[in-house]
Amino acid sequence: MEQYALPIANLIEQLSHLPGIGRKTAQRLAFYILEMEDIDAEKLSKSIIEAKDKIRLCSICCNLTDEDPCNICRDNIRDKSIICVVEGAKDIIAMEKSREYKGQYHVLHGVISPMDNVGPNDIKIKELLDRLSNDEVKEIILATNPTVEGEATALYISRLVKPLGIKVTRIAHGIPIGGDLEYFDEITIAKAIDNRREI
Amino acid sequence: MEQYALPIANLIEQLSHLPGIGRKTAQRLAFYILEMEDIDAEKLSKSIIEAKDKIRLCSICCNLTDEDPCNICRDNIRDKSIICVVEGAKDIIAMEKSREYKGQYHVLHGVISPMDNVGPNDIKIKELLDRLSNDEVKEIILATNPTVEGEATALYISRLVKPLGIKVTRIAHGIPIGGDLEYFDEITIAKAIDNRREI
Repeated sequence: MEQYALPIANLIEQLSHLPGIGRKTAQRLAFYILEMEDIDAEKLSKSIIEAKDKIRLCSICCNLTDEDPCNICRDNIRDKSIICVVEGAKDIIAMEKSREYKGQYHVLHGVISPMDNVGPNDIKIKELLDRLSNDEVKEIILATNPTVEGEATALYISRLVKPLGIKVTRIAHGIPIGGDLEYFDEITIAKAIDNRREI
Repeated sequence: MEQYALPIANLIEQLSHLPGIGRKTAQRLAFYILEMEDIDAEKLSKSIIEAKDKIRLCSICCNLTDEDPCNICRDNIRDKSIICVVEGAKDIIAMEKSREYKGQYHVLHGVISPMDNVGPNDIKIKELLDRLSNDEVKEIILATNPTVEGEATALYISRLVKPLGIKVTRIAHGIPIGGDLEYFDEITIAKAIDNRREI
């Protein structure tokens, strides 16, 4: 066992809980932090507390925001008749970068995953259904990831929403632009063939 | 430009200052932290402040420690006649893991690097020389890394220490154990040939 002073061992331990940060990386980060200027380390520490403190869920779309409703829900120019359902708040950032979509969002904060003990009530599906009670919404775009859990969650939501007379669509999956056929797995290619369109 | 709420943008900014953490990784970490339990985020934040607060330099060897002198300098079983000079405190951890070395250490906290404006007075060379003023020390092992700056720093220290009548050695550089000749660069191989010993 390595003999770190307790505060260093603790810092390494805390850092190694972060995703993608193994023990070795946590050690490197910890020593970097120890060599940082005090003021910079303080800024880092404070930014964590402040983000946790100030960021809450938008009461409409469950996006992470410091103002309620979030800036997307407050934006009156955006199309209120269409809601894009995503797994996490960072998916909104990715969608917004494309500048293609001008509707509303709904963040599920997870996917249905019986293996991880996550059921429909553990993610924000009820909140989505609540938003559909008025007549404004005409279409739901399901943009969960193309994983087993993402697909199952999309299917689950579509079965709840379709009976309400709302159009339910799924984003297209296939070969990404700039991608080379030979580098993609057979499921992606099968999907791309399945979803082919006439040109 | 991505439209993050200010506290999220700030957290991403702070995380992206860490070494090896690019913008994308910082985003992923930030969103992970936002989804963390409050108590865990607080632990992470506190561990940074506490480590910065409690960890100082050992007044003897400049190792990072929460007690002065550090546990290695306090250990009376260790050989006081030999000092291994390393670039950073994490190098001590690596050396200690080998269980081969039972002497003292000295941490330089950097290497001489004119390109980065780091001169001999910016690293703990003076502190090393101060330790040599009594007669106890018989050998200095230079264990700086085999980079241009590490070699230059080793040479610089050896020139200062040799006139004091103290033996100065450099750790061996060559093919690492388990390494395969074909995967190493020509400089490593040249070094390994240069440093060959009779068996």
